[in-house]
Amino acid sequence: MPQSPFVPVIPAGGSGTRLWPLSRRAHPKFLLDPTGEGSSLLQQTVRRLGPLADAPPLVVTGAEHAVIVREQLADVAPAEVVAEPSPRSSMPAIALAAALVERDRPDAVIGSFAADHLIGDQQAFARAVHSARAAAELGYLVTLGIAPTRPATGFGYIEQDGAGTAGVAAEGGGARCDAALRESGARPVVRFVEKPDRERAERFLATGRFLWNAGMFVVRASVLLDELTAQIPPLARGVREIAAARGTGRYQEVLERVWPHLTAIAIDHALAEPLAAQGRVAVVPAAFGWDDVGDFAALSRQLREHGRASPAEDERAAPPGGDVRVLGSASVDAVSSRATVYGATDRHIALVGLDGISIVDTEDALLVLADEQAQDLPVLVARLEERGLGRLR
Amino acid sequence: MPQSPFVPVIPAGGSGTRLWPLSRRAHPKFLLDPTGEGSSLLQQTVRRLGPLADAPPLVVTGAEHAVIVREQLADVAPAEVVAEPSPRSSMPAIALAAALVERDRPDAVIGSFAADHLIGDQQAFARAVHSARAAAELGYLVTLGIAPTRPATGFGYIEQDGAGTAGVAAEGGGARCDAALRESGARPVVRFVEKPDRERAERFLATGRFLWNAGMFVVRASVLLDELTAQIPPLARGVREIAAARGTGRYQEVLERVWPHLTAIAIDHALAEPLAAQGRVAVVPAAFGWDDVGDFAALSRQLREHGRASPAEDERAAPPGGDVRVLGSASVDAVSSRATVYGATDRHIALVGLDGISIVDTEDALLVLADEQAQDLPVLVARLEERGLGRLR
Repeated sequence: MPQSPFVPVIPAGGSGTRLWPLSRRAHPKFLLDPTGEGSSLLQQTVRRLGPLADAPPLVVTGAEHAVIVREQLADVAPAEVVAEPSPRSSMPAIALAAALVERDRPDAVIGSFAADHLIGDQQAFARAVHSARAAAELGYLVTLGIAPTRPATGFGYIEQDGAGTAGVAAEGGGARCDAALRESGARPVVRFVEKPDRERAERFLATGRFLWNAGMFVVRASVLLDELTAQIPPLARGVREIAAARGTGRYQEVLERVWPHLTAIAIDHALAEPLAAQGRVAVVPAAFGWDDVGDFAALSRQLREHGRASPAEDERAAPPGGDVRVLGSASVDAVSSRATVYGATDRHIALVGLDGISIVDTEDALLVLADEQAQDLPVLVARLEERGLGRLR
Repeated sequence: MPQSPFVPVIPAGGSGTRLWPLSRRAHPKFLLDPTGEGSSLLQQTVRRLGPLADAPPLVVTGAEHAVIVREQLADVAPAEVVAEPSPRSSMPAIALAAALVERDRPDAVIGSFAADHLIGDQQAFARAVHSARAAAELGYLVTLGIAPTRPATGFGYIEQDGAGTAGVAAEGGGARCDAALRESGARPVVRFVEKPDRERAERFLATGRFLWNAGMFVVRASVLLDELTAQIPPLARGVREIAAARGTGRYQEVLERVWPHLTAIAIDHALAEPLAAQGRVAVVPAAFGWDDVGDFAALSRQLREHGRASPAEDERAAPPGGDVRVLGSASVDAVSSRATVYGATDRHIALVGLDGISIVDTEDALLVLADEQAQDLPVLVARLEERGLGRLR
């Protein structure tokens, strides 16, 4: 049983290019309900973590999104919103949250979870967090690793020590053998691996040792900050200075003075990788159904594999002769089509003979995209400015 | 040289389902400019025939379209508009026109040409009409047959006598050998064939004897009416009765009394096929580039093969990495896509990874269609009523 208080941290960022025009610069993915759950990904994330927390979650978001984030959370659950003056990648955001938590609860364990991911089995997620907290109290930087269901090339991977076969475990790359850790349900991490190509991803799955890196970290706030002090002293100093001013009249001034100089670096590079090399990172293998909804191909897959449905879809999921998923208010009819429609207007949408196409119908922009080339969408979004259509971003 | 006056007849009908939502019930294909010529198919047809005619063309159209037809023709060329109280297929429309022409010019030759076809080479078309008039003055029912450029399965075919090889000609099914006919450039027709399957169409092309049936007929008005009297007496009587009343105060009354009882039949079945069996039909082989623009697949092919372009297309024909044709006002950007966009709104349209897709973006309806399944579109249009969306027809 974990002893220390648990405080969730929710980095809420994103540029809104991979789900454009559903997501916009001013309305990123975490504010959307792309699978028709009835609440935004941010609201789902806060609801998911609330019951597991000993204090309201800290949501760290861009200053330009702070207002709408507060609006969305007002009717959901209490949360503390921390506004970044400018984007500095994930480490400064999580470190600042850790410093704010540490100030009030020196022994607290924090858990950082992105605001824009989909989680399937909420109970399984809660069990994984419970295990991660226990491991974090042992001093580990703990990550939740998702049991891969396919050789995905869009995710990073985590190699755990000795999962699968004992033989491998015995030779596990310099991993500590820690009975308490094993008891917590976590395992030592051998290394983090960047997005692999297809062939390599298939080899990973064959070993049974590799998990998807969902970017979820659970760690004692003081441990995170002490390790950060060892790795990047000025960054740790900076966030502790800002946290010290929180709640005083000086906060905004200190934040705006210190923040721009904090090292812009991802937590993976700043802490996870160096600590993994020291055998100080643990992973909790989990299988609760996870997706970062990275593009429209992922979204179409989610809608089909997990049957997430909006009321609109319940009515119109399968027009004669096709598998057409409809999110939003659009009226859709189709002949022999496999497609996903995000209809934000009241126009009638007719589809004929489509296979693996996503359509996003908004008042000022229409996207028609082949799911298998979804990764090319940012190219188009980037061109909007030069075409004098920046208002559509 | 043809001696008799020539009067064009232009049946302007159509249900507007195969190019929906570009075409609508109230705005059929002949009123559209689907290839960005700067004028509608009807206007192009009247302009094409005007210089060849000895009297203003007769445009026969549905009563509900008479007003807009007159509007479109006002700024193009003089034409006489005949309004059908109800659709009765092509024979009553052409027969009525023939009767009206015969009344004022008993020796006139009429030429019937659909209002919604595309013609490429206007000079070649004029030459073909000239030959057809000469043959018509010999008493033949003359049709213009298009030299096929591919084994199309969407058109009917005409088998001519003895084209290709003399050997075949000698055995030509009971065709008359008419020196004057040959001199006119026309050839006897052996038979008309309905739309064939692919394999049969390929055999047709291999013989060199088969031409596409473009539904263009040139015939002396008196010959058409006399033959009709032999085949379907009441139909011939009816149109002559209506024609006799034209220009009097009784016209509308007579039209509305007689018209509904005229035999609803196509000219192919009423006259062309029976006369062909008697060796009294001739065909002028022509190669002026023709298409009936039967569906969006045909339209996409036209835009690519003949490079027809609207100003919009000139600007935006080839966005980086694709062959995207744009008709209308839409701003379009694409990544590696082969698509055709008919943009009637001011929304920005973004395409990713499409191959052979047509998109029609209108204020009240959006169509996304795979060109190779364009023939399935009417299924969707037919369902609009039952979905309570009849207003979109």
